[in-house]
Amino acid sequence: MDETYDVIVVGGGAGGVAAALRAAQLGAKVAVVEEKHLGGLCMNRGCVPFGHMMVASHFLGDLALAKEMGIACSEVSKDLAALLSRQNELIAFMQQGVKTMLNKRRVSLVMGQGRLSSPGRVQVNGKTLEGKSIILASGGCWVKPEFKGSDFPDVVNSDYLLTAKSVPGRCLLCGGGPWSIEIAQFLNRYGSRVWLATPEESLLAGESKTIRSRLSKALQAQEISILTGAEILSSKRKTAGMEIIISSKGKEEIIEVDLLITLRRRAALQGLGLETVGLNETDEFIRVDEGMQTRVKGLYAIGDLTAPEKKQYSHLASLGGFVAAENAMGLSRSFDERTLTRIIFTKPQVACVGLTAKEAKEQGYEAVVGSAPLSMNTFGMMAAQTEGLVEVVAEKRYGQILGIHMIGDRVSEMAGQGVLAVQQEMTLEELAQTTFPHPTLSESLAEAARDALGIPIYLP
Amino acid sequence: MDETYDVIVVGGGAGGVAAALRAAQLGAKVAVVEEKHLGGLCMNRGCVPFGHMMVASHFLGDLALAKEMGIACSEVSKDLAALLSRQNELIAFMQQGVKTMLNKRRVSLVMGQGRLSSPGRVQVNGKTLEGKSIILASGGCWVKPEFKGSDFPDVVNSDYLLTAKSVPGRCLLCGGGPWSIEIAQFLNRYGSRVWLATPEESLLAGESKTIRSRLSKALQAQEISILTGAEILSSKRKTAGMEIIISSKGKEEIIEVDLLITLRRRAALQGLGLETVGLNETDEFIRVDEGMQTRVKGLYAIGDLTAPEKKQYSHLASLGGFVAAENAMGLSRSFDERTLTRIIFTKPQVACVGLTAKEAKEQGYEAVVGSAPLSMNTFGMMAAQTEGLVEVVAEKRYGQILGIHMIGDRVSEMAGQGVLAVQQEMTLEELAQTTFPHPTLSESLAEAARDALGIPIYLP
Repeated sequence: MDETYDVIVVGGGAGGVAAALRAAQLGAKVAVVEEKHLGGLCMNRGCVPFGHMMVASHFLGDLALAKEMGIACSEVSKDLAALLSRQNELIAFMQQGVKTMLNKRRVSLVMGQGRLSSPGRVQVNGKTLEGKSIILASGGCWVKPEFKGSDFPDVVNSDYLLTAKSVPGRCLLCGGGPWSIEIAQFLNRYGSRVWLATPEESLLAGESKTIRSRLSKALQAQEISILTGAEILSSKRKTAGMEIIISSKGKEEIIEVDLLITLRRRAALQGLGLETVGLNETDEFIRVDEGMQTRVKGLYAIGDLTAPEKKQYSHLASLGGFVAAENAMGLSRSFDERTLTRIIFTKPQVACVGLTAKEAKEQGYEAVVGSAPLSMNTFGMMAAQTEGLVEVVAEKRYGQILGIHMIGDRVSEMAGQGVLAVQQEMTLEELAQTTFPHPTLSESLAEAARDALGIPIYLP
Repeated sequence: MDETYDVIVVGGGAGGVAAALRAAQLGAKVAVVEEKHLGGLCMNRGCVPFGHMMVASHFLGDLALAKEMGIACSEVSKDLAALLSRQNELIAFMQQGVKTMLNKRRVSLVMGQGRLSSPGRVQVNGKTLEGKSIILASGGCWVKPEFKGSDFPDVVNSDYLLTAKSVPGRCLLCGGGPWSIEIAQFLNRYGSRVWLATPEESLLAGESKTIRSRLSKALQAQEISILTGAEILSSKRKTAGMEIIISSKGKEEIIEVDLLITLRRRAALQGLGLETVGLNETDEFIRVDEGMQTRVKGLYAIGDLTAPEKKQYSHLASLGGFVAAENAMGLSRSFDERTLTRIIFTKPQVACVGLTAKEAKEQGYEAVVGSAPLSMNTFGMMAAQTEGLVEVVAEKRYGQILGIHMIGDRVSEMAGQGVLAVQQEMTLEELAQTTFPHPTLSESLAEAARDALGIPIYLP
């Protein structure tokens, strides 16, 4: 054996780094095997660059309200190169930060592609590492689209935008998840004519109906065209751009665009050597127990490897990393899926924690729902949160809060209140009596809880 | 008797309206006696107009980061009249909303100055109203400054700004509370040269030292001059403006300004008829028990009437209103002071809930403190939160969280997480294991809890 470790983490993204740092903190001798860049998808090609683009596009989105308040910008210029340059610097700085943290905890960083060779063994660069526990954290990969013409150079994924010289004049985004909605808004703010196509019956399918419909309205008001139940049938090159034939709810449409961005991703199981330990690389994703352990003792998997596309969130990967590391080191911790936030950083933002009313009913609860529009909230009125809303779902008997769903400009930082309410198994009564500071959007959480109890104070 | 009620509320501000609506919801026949404007200080001359001004000034404060991101405004114009006009419309709309809500709950609105005439009786406009319970909610008043020259027309309080034609060229603000800091920043963003003088040893005296020093640094970086331990000795008119002699930490200074804004307030006990029920109108404020009842049975008092200047927050008044109304109607509810947020809406914002480490020690706890700078937080890096920080205070034995203190651009909406943590008596362990969505500033709450436990993951 070339080297032995307590814990080998395959993949140095958000989940893998969390696992490695936590395991090292618990005294483990740890190796992280990373093929390309520390920080993974989230830091290099996901949350960080696109979150950064969202921040920039919010400045543009805020100009209308600023103007209403008497603050006018005579001419607004958008320098995409400056934006990308700032975010590349940020990413380089963050990568260096991760490296420093790993060094400080004496985690060995092995650059190369890691592959299981048998239970407890990982091959990388021709060497074999042996680990008492192995945590697979190598993430997801793009799914190549398969329609006719999908191999044109103007059919790309979101990586394209990270080095783009300009935004496309006309762009079709294909994918119903958070990411495609964020990019749609970014491109729209930067001047593109944008179509957003989802294969599902609506954007954010599965989320609260009220939230979904408010988001769609807000995006449409920004002149983003939304196509639901959509499938691309073919694309054809034109002198300028492409002609896309797309079916939406069974009806065919032709759209002319300059760029087509498809965003389907899946767990990247191939090449991990899963077959050498009796797992199947043709599964949709790796199944794990609540301790993040696979069917193979001592073999854990976390993050995008273990989730359908809808649940590929960085914070889910980090949590999985902590849970796997602690269990690998002999502690006992479960993955609490109840509190995972589904979030998008558009304007308005959306943050959903826990069960929708529909899910609660499907799980056998007698569900009560309360809501409070942010247009009735003091700060909401000040900041023109016309499409904002907070919705609370609880079970009727004891009033235990099962889910909190929010749309509005600052709900990404209010999401934690939903997480705590669900995690701490708060009741409607407790939330109704909570004193949030005034004037904040958060006050609407208490009002939504009172609404669910049938005692709203400030609603008409 | 002219009219009899279950509950008479004297004062139609944030606290009084909350009390009236809640009492009516519980089946009471309610009257609200209001002298001037529904909505009180908060809506007419406090939280709403100055909160609105903060929103506007944040647009200006954000321009530097926008520019770093490649978004440049060639010329920015600030139209104060447009700003004031929008906020006046907002206030009128909100006042109408309050009126509608009171009507809908069949609360009688009596316009006029209410005054106790004996236990259970309120005189207004020569009529006597009789109430089984009376809730005093008439708020605070300005304290006139008393230095030589304090009667000059350019010595004003913050009401002046609500109808100002322009911002003063040079302005001295006197008062150490949230409000004066917010106004200082607003005037600075709108082009004034600003001095901020507090009689106390620092801005936000009594709050966490780290938070205070980070706030002061941020304000000074914006070129706001801060004078601590300050007292105005005299003012003298000049051809243009005034010459103010001010002592700061015992040292005299001369400052030339065009406007002096003093912001001292106190409970407005005079004229309430307190002596007719055996209470003393020369007290600093009205003492109440945890059910908001005064020494007189059936007589409640809430809000700024019952608090020293430092605790005159609108959300404290509303909470008091709910508590008083419920107790007046035979329920039993206590005022939970632990969870009150002290907040300022400047850039960066500050939100403090519960005990500081110093207060915890004074109360006999063995306190542990953990903190996480937002400069190490992913979103914090993206949004340049260099002065941001989250601090968690807990007692050592069980890890119960006693206080959470935050500074950063979005902490007003994160404050609720502090409120819930303290209210639900969460432990450090629970907060450390909470999964906040990524990338948000809220993630630093979990890291600060881990830091307090000695197991930070991402801190150097």
